Amino acid sequence: MKLYNVGILGATGAVGREMMKVLEERRFPIDELRLLASARSAGKQLTFRGEGITIQEAAEDAFEGLDIVLGAAENDVARRFAPAIQAAGAVFVDNSSAFRLDSDVPLVVPEINPEDVKKHHGIIANPNCTTIISLVAINGLRKASDIETIIASSYQAVSGAGAAGLAELDQQLHAICEGGEVKVGAFPYQIACNVIPQIGGEAYEGYTSEEMKLQNEGRKIMHLPDMKVSCTCVRVPVMRSHSVSILVRTKKKITVEQARELIAAAPGCKLVDDLVNRRYPMPLDTSDQDLVFVGRIREDLTCDKGLNIWCCGDQIRKGAATNAVQIAELLLDA
Amino acid sequence: MKLYNVGILGATGAVGREMMKVLEERRFPIDELRLLASARSAGKQLTFRGEGITIQEAAEDAFEGLDIVLGAAENDVARRFAPAIQAAGAVFVDNSSAFRLDSDVPLVVPEINPEDVKKHHGIIANPNCTTIISLVAINGLRKASDIETIIASSYQAVSGAGAAGLAELDQQLHAICEGGEVKVGAFPYQIACNVIPQIGGEAYEGYTSEEMKLQNEGRKIMHLPDMKVSCTCVRVPVMRSHSVSILVRTKKKITVEQARELIAAAPGCKLVDDLVNRRYPMPLDTSDQDLVFVGRIREDLTCDKGLNIWCCGDQIRKGAATNAVQIAELLLDA
Repeated sequence: MKLYNVGILGATGAVGREMMKVLEERRFPIDELRLLASARSAGKQLTFRGEGITIQEAAEDAFEGLDIVLGAAENDVARRFAPAIQAAGAVFVDNSSAFRLDSDVPLVVPEINPEDVKKHHGIIANPNCTTIISLVAINGLRKASDIETIIASSYQAVSGAGAAGLAELDQQLHAICEGGEVKVGAFPYQIACNVIPQIGGEAYEGYTSEEMKLQNEGRKIMHLPDMKVSCTCVRVPVMRSHSVSILVRTKKKITVEQARELIAAAPGCKLVDDLVNRRYPMPLDTSDQDLVFVGRIREDLTCDKGLNIWCCGDQIRKGAATNAVQIAELLLDA
Repeated sequence: MKLYNVGILGATGAVGREMMKVLEERRFPIDELRLLASARSAGKQLTFRGEGITIQEAAEDAFEGLDIVLGAAENDVARRFAPAIQAAGAVFVDNSSAFRLDSDVPLVVPEINPEDVKKHHGIIANPNCTTIISLVAINGLRKASDIETIIASSYQAVSGAGAAGLAELDQQLHAICEGGEVKVGAFPYQIACNVIPQIGGEAYEGYTSEEMKLQNEGRKIMHLPDMKVSCTCVRVPVMRSHSVSILVRTKKKITVEQARELIAAAPGCKLVDDLVNRRYPMPLDTSDQDLVFVGRIREDLTCDKGLNIWCCGDQIRKGAATNAVQIAELLLDA
């Protein structure tokens, strides 16, 4: 079996560390794993397959000999190093939003549009976490009908702001319980015992950048350029799983029973839908695994061809690290 | 000035105690305040206007001489004592859902349908908390157009389950921070660091009882029997303010600028809508006061005559206690 040299750019963050875990769990065929981060982390060690790997400083000459680089850094870092990664001949599977809407960059959810991977020119983008989770939840419906519109309200975990977001909620919970000072930095306001209806800056007509991703990235991933999406993105005091309340309108009518069958059979989904017995997706149940749980499926009461759906998925895994590793696996097959 | 004898049925719960506070704050013209609760609480004292009042056991003969009874108890208690309250000649302003949809019982939000109070036959119902907060937020729009449909996803505080809900989140937060056992009772699952997409049991076609209230109570309050509402009600780990993400579709188009003006001028509302400067309604800002904060107003991207809106209000106050006292004030004027 061919072995690959794989780099992780931004290895010390929440997503980078999870990528290491997912690569190991899924037995990705790795010869060398190269961990790249800022100068601050260089020289420290992280453990992979039982052995310590010393973190190197990310620099233009750090990518030589790599086949695949998984990007777990911010947009500016992704933009800075993309040319060097391409010059080194590696494929850059990038989790930042820097390249997602570029016409020559595939944007891929392996359960939805795996074939798009083949069109890459050195960069493949990993979609936004809420977009991945929402689209995996409703993708199965497309066997019965095209999707016309999505109306979504999200309940997003603090891990969306990385390790700093996780640490911030933890600090605030302790401060509230023990009487200390609540510190605010990763989010604009206290998130413990609060919800914040803003993720990202204003992007379009009062919508935030995060809110526009479900439409703009969703159209590209699903090859539905006319799909209309209205989204309200809200941060909630949950550690690492996002939830989304979705109203999906389809071209043809889909009954609840049909929808349940389609979703139960859809790749990447687990149907958890039994209200009477109190079974429905919840963030506490979806953390540390890769499936998107889908439930509360019911016919919309405001239109003829609408379904209301509730879904949850692990933001760090399926929303980021696992999806990126799945894309890298498609490169092995190609 | 005429003074009234007022009773509170269920005086020891979160809503009952808040009713005492609101009656005092608003200088309700009270001669006697009679506090009624279960046998367990009888004999204990609560303070009103600086004086201790001894709690009496609620019983059929406990309502003699009262002019108004504010109900802050569960449905079964409300049903049990309604005949005795009416027999005593008092008006029963009830916060339970027992009588809300009865045709001879007005269901009143004073900012929306104060005139309905006059039609009472001894019972006036106080609406569901999420319904009050959502309708106060959008009521101002009706000066420009009829409302046709509402699609709502809620972020509901633990106070919706009363004092037990508040205590449960507090206990769970301490257990998580200090390593103790998380105790579950008021909610079906742990609510700390989680969200639970179920409030109430199944009521209609997969919708919960709580989810159907916005449509069924909303139609009655707004006198819009054909209004269609789809709702997803979700419990979040927030203490006492509910938030709602609302898509409201109107008969005539309303621009964002118009909507801002109408909402800013609407009774009971405070416009907090400046995304660029990070100003929007949040539960931490709306607690312990009576206004519904409204913001994130933007044109819907999936239909022509839709507005997306985000609102927050204190569940115990405007969602329950304050609204009930406001109804009682209308009785004084009548």
